[in-house]
Amino acid sequence: MRKISTLLLVFLSLNLFAQLPKLERIEPANWWVGMKNPSLQLLVHGDRIANSQVKLAYPGVRLVKVNKVENPNYLFLDLSISSAAKAGKFPIQFIENGKVIAQHIYEFKDRSTQTDRVKGVTSADLIYLLMPDRFSNGDQSNDVVKGLKETSLNRDSMYYRHGGDIQGLINHLPYLKELGVTTVWMTPEIENDMQQASYHGYAATDHYKIDPRYGTNELYKSYVEKCHAMGLKVIKDIVHNHIGTNHWFFTDLPMKSWVHQWPKYTQTTYRDQTVMDPHASEADRKQMLDGWFVPSMPDLNQENPFVQNYLTQNHIWWIEYAGIDGLRLDTYPYNDPAYMADWAQKLKAEFPNLSIFGETLVWSVANQAFFAGGNVVNRGFDTRLPGVTDAVLKDAIYEALNGKNGWTDGVNRLYATLAQDFLYKDPSKNVVFMDNHDMSRFYSMVGEDFDKFKSGMALLLTMRGIPEIYYGTEILMKNFSNPDGLVRSDFPGGWKDDTTNKFVENGRTAKENEAFNFVKKLANYRKTTSALQSGKLMQYIPQDGIYVYFRYDESKTIMVIFNSNEQEKEMSTDRFFERTKAFEKARNIISGEELSSIITLKVPAKTTLVLELK
Amino acid sequence: MRKISTLLLVFLSLNLFAQLPKLERIEPANWWVGMKNPSLQLLVHGDRIANSQVKLAYPGVRLVKVNKVENPNYLFLDLSISSAAKAGKFPIQFIENGKVIAQHIYEFKDRSTQTDRVKGVTSADLIYLLMPDRFSNGDQSNDVVKGLKETSLNRDSMYYRHGGDIQGLINHLPYLKELGVTTVWMTPEIENDMQQASYHGYAATDHYKIDPRYGTNELYKSYVEKCHAMGLKVIKDIVHNHIGTNHWFFTDLPMKSWVHQWPKYTQTTYRDQTVMDPHASEADRKQMLDGWFVPSMPDLNQENPFVQNYLTQNHIWWIEYAGIDGLRLDTYPYNDPAYMADWAQKLKAEFPNLSIFGETLVWSVANQAFFAGGNVVNRGFDTRLPGVTDAVLKDAIYEALNGKNGWTDGVNRLYATLAQDFLYKDPSKNVVFMDNHDMSRFYSMVGEDFDKFKSGMALLLTMRGIPEIYYGTEILMKNFSNPDGLVRSDFPGGWKDDTTNKFVENGRTAKENEAFNFVKKLANYRKTTSALQSGKLMQYIPQDGIYVYFRYDESKTIMVIFNSNEQEKEMSTDRFFERTKAFEKARNIISGEELSSIITLKVPAKTTLVLELK
Repeated sequence: MRKISTLLLVFLSLNLFAQLPKLERIEPANWWVGMKNPSLQLLVHGDRIANSQVKLAYPGVRLVKVNKVENPNYLFLDLSISSAAKAGKFPIQFIENGKVIAQHIYEFKDRSTQTDRVKGVTSADLIYLLMPDRFSNGDQSNDVVKGLKETSLNRDSMYYRHGGDIQGLINHLPYLKELGVTTVWMTPEIENDMQQASYHGYAATDHYKIDPRYGTNELYKSYVEKCHAMGLKVIKDIVHNHIGTNHWFFTDLPMKSWVHQWPKYTQTTYRDQTVMDPHASEADRKQMLDGWFVPSMPDLNQENPFVQNYLTQNHIWWIEYAGIDGLRLDTYPYNDPAYMADWAQKLKAEFPNLSIFGETLVWSVANQAFFAGGNVVNRGFDTRLPGVTDAVLKDAIYEALNGKNGWTDGVNRLYATLAQDFLYKDPSKNVVFMDNHDMSRFYSMVGEDFDKFKSGMALLLTMRGIPEIYYGTEILMKNFSNPDGLVRSDFPGGWKDDTTNKFVENGRTAKENEAFNFVKKLANYRKTTSALQSGKLMQYIPQDGIYVYFRYDESKTIMVIFNSNEQEKEMSTDRFFERTKAFEKARNIISGEELSSIITLKVPAKTTLVLELK
Repeated sequence: MRKISTLLLVFLSLNLFAQLPKLERIEPANWWVGMKNPSLQLLVHGDRIANSQVKLAYPGVRLVKVNKVENPNYLFLDLSISSAAKAGKFPIQFIENGKVIAQHIYEFKDRSTQTDRVKGVTSADLIYLLMPDRFSNGDQSNDVVKGLKETSLNRDSMYYRHGGDIQGLINHLPYLKELGVTTVWMTPEIENDMQQASYHGYAATDHYKIDPRYGTNELYKSYVEKCHAMGLKVIKDIVHNHIGTNHWFFTDLPMKSWVHQWPKYTQTTYRDQTVMDPHASEADRKQMLDGWFVPSMPDLNQENPFVQNYLTQNHIWWIEYAGIDGLRLDTYPYNDPAYMADWAQKLKAEFPNLSIFGETLVWSVANQAFFAGGNVVNRGFDTRLPGVTDAVLKDAIYEALNGKNGWTDGVNRLYATLAQDFLYKDPSKNVVFMDNHDMSRFYSMVGEDFDKFKSGMALLLTMRGIPEIYYGTEILMKNFSNPDGLVRSDFPGGWKDDTTNKFVENGRTAKENEAFNFVKKLANYRKTTSALQSGKLMQYIPQDGIYVYFRYDESKTIMVIFNSNEQEKEMSTDRFFERTKAFEKARNIISGEELSSIITLKVPAKTTLVLELK
């Protein structure tokens, strides 16, 4: 994520005497038997709960240690759960002076045995990214929720809540299905009870609760199940690095070292270089990792083992609870590297098929690859991060579309960038995209040039990696990220009183339908074409502003030709003989046209041809 | 090297019937006992020499195999030399019908036991690069040599010979010594008997012979010895990739596969990407590696074991013969990767201290690092190439000097580029430079801005790696590489009839002296300052257009501050406490000024301060 507009600086010191019920909460609220990791650490929060003794008895469960910390309102209970433990409920009792002062009925459940969950998101998929507040309002009753700190709705401002919710998304899953999407990624949907810009989602105030303005935990679970039933997968967007200043545990910190403390407010430098540079100072590295993202987002201390357990268990909880297929990790480079590697191992131990990719907004393939797993670029240990958001490839596609042809400019930038895939263990796990909620929209970035738009979408949908489309790009939604906000406009038709409904064909203009149908055609073709999903990529040195690559496997060979010139070009296919020699004809996937010969090909100006060779 | 102006295409087919003496040559002309590698392959060239039987007898030397090849004018003799073999001479006899038709007295010598040779070039050194034809004419008798194909001298044209030679260089070694240079690198000095542009040096016509217009083999050896006696080291510039069309063995090829043959002339694509790109086609890779650099330079086939032996032995021969300290490998990415790794191992086996760096004119640190040894960037095998010419760092320094400050522009580019040193096993083995014979000169590239010139030279001489200065840059020689040629102008004063002599103080203008003295001061300071030679580097995130780094070891800490702004800036040194905490004062190395406090520092506009902390 990028900086949100600066909010009020709320920098609270450790509050040892918050007014609380005797037992405010235990987290995780439940757990499962049969996990690979036998350990569980329960956070207990309640009024001077540390003065109590803890008692629990359940077959196969052992209370290994009761951890007291600086703040007496907390206890951390280390449990060990044997593989023999069975699902069931039991009381955890808190005793003072021989008297039970509080009790909580804890539950261990059986793990789900459903086979259509936690399946992972792969390069066979097409991700649709949306902001739940801005996609569709399916339940007006939760638009403003009493007790929460942001009290009004204002669709005229990009910084207020607009009322979108999970029900709205559920209502439009058929639209996504029609478009050819296979995976839904919402920006974070857990509670963000902030006074301002709470729609934003990256300032969590409760890790175990869907924001009531989006729905309930149960609705979220049901949304995932509905997706799975329709053959769609679900990505959850999670944030290790920071929380919102209104997070309940920030207003009554377990210990000072729960978050990164500074003598005065200190912001991160946003310089990923400091974690890879062999010449970096400790001071620069520390400020990058431990500095706060913005004043309203305290920086969690991931070197603190209690924080580590809290986050790791929370993520495992959500996956086992709802059956999520993949995780997108916000602000990946800002996190403690050793913890993140350990975290990934723990998650993959419980969910071997889970997909994980990290947001890495950095300036080069090498810097991106530094964060990717597999130690191809050696950093002394394996990050175990399978994929990254491939912003460098996005920039290269833009350069191919908008740039002037040069040795490493124009289409040659795209060629040269993909050639650097040697820096990844598996670049097919990278998420490729043209825009997202932090960036100017694709259609605006190509100057609303419809040819370039189609060319770029064709590149995106035939490229190696996991393609992602930002909501509305398929219907030519536009705007620039600076001034921030307008790239987060509502999807027209997502609200009852919208005057147009672009979810349906007759609500869209002719051009919008052409865009929608272009994406739909390629996305659905991709869905049934293994060569585009998992086939090999072979690219050729661009010549004369024309860039050619192939995706191929045993069943099919797809030839992609991007003519970046302002004129139509004819070209011989001689030099591609390694990939073309078995074929004589081709079908244009977009137009359906059959080509009786591929010896020479004509490519219109600014066009990407997608040809299935025959 | 870059393309020279296109010369006449001379593309000869295999000539099986050249008119030759019975025994034209045996190469290498001599060898040494006590080499690590017991094998030696002698190339024998003579009129239908393959019809002969070969006889030789010498204690400890065994003729293992006589290889006949396509062309009967060649034999390749595989010898095995035992560790017991002693230095001495013996005849190699060629017998036809029981009659000795030719005989050659071959010599094995003892290896040199001198300790001041083959010492290696390290980051403690400062390299001076020059073109021997353009530096100084010390011997007019060899200006035009009868029998060679370029017959005239014309100092008014950049493409003709100018008459510079090894004696001219020897005459000016004291000048280099005064400047603070420790190592001399000449562009190739072996015979280039080409009709045109023979001064260029990269179109060899005899691998075992110094071009007679530069001198003799003996003079070259004596030049190296003179350098060593003065405490200077010598780098030889060698070319694995190609030769000149007039090379004696190209006019009578041993076999077709000695060079890369194509159905019609095919030029390399100059695309290093094709050797690293996991998505590259075989056709693109082949054209990069096997395509010819230019029509006048046939591309040697380094997959041919006879070619491999020929080149490897030639390089070993020159080092053992003359005592060379380091090798610069021309057009490194164009060579066969597996051979180059094997070659490096063989060279290092004979000369453990030998330094090697490869010319890699590529577009990113990752692409450069791909060619560097140590497998930090995994390419499946170790190239064993210790260092590369760091053109990407050069570009970054230019961006720091000329660019506009931005997130990764201006000084931030330099910072971000050095941060990518994690891609190298040892970036201190890279050669850092501001210009060379293929590039526009530094002073022109900064718009003849003297402040920028001094700033850049200060960065170069305090940077990690092995700095290189291109001849004349220290006296503000200028010009752009396009149109090619003028960056290869003669050093004024290197010729008897020159009207000015800039080798001496009173031949230089005030500004030229200021430039010369600036380089001299820093180079000589560097010579005695281990922190600048081999100290660690610590760099800080640039702030406000100011870039700060430190070079430090146990004896000294040098603080380098580059203010890229057009205004003087004052800055606090608080954030550098890791490096400054032990110090209170400083000395400005350039001005000699003593600073009584380093709490805040003033840095003039466009200036690089070099401060020794105290």
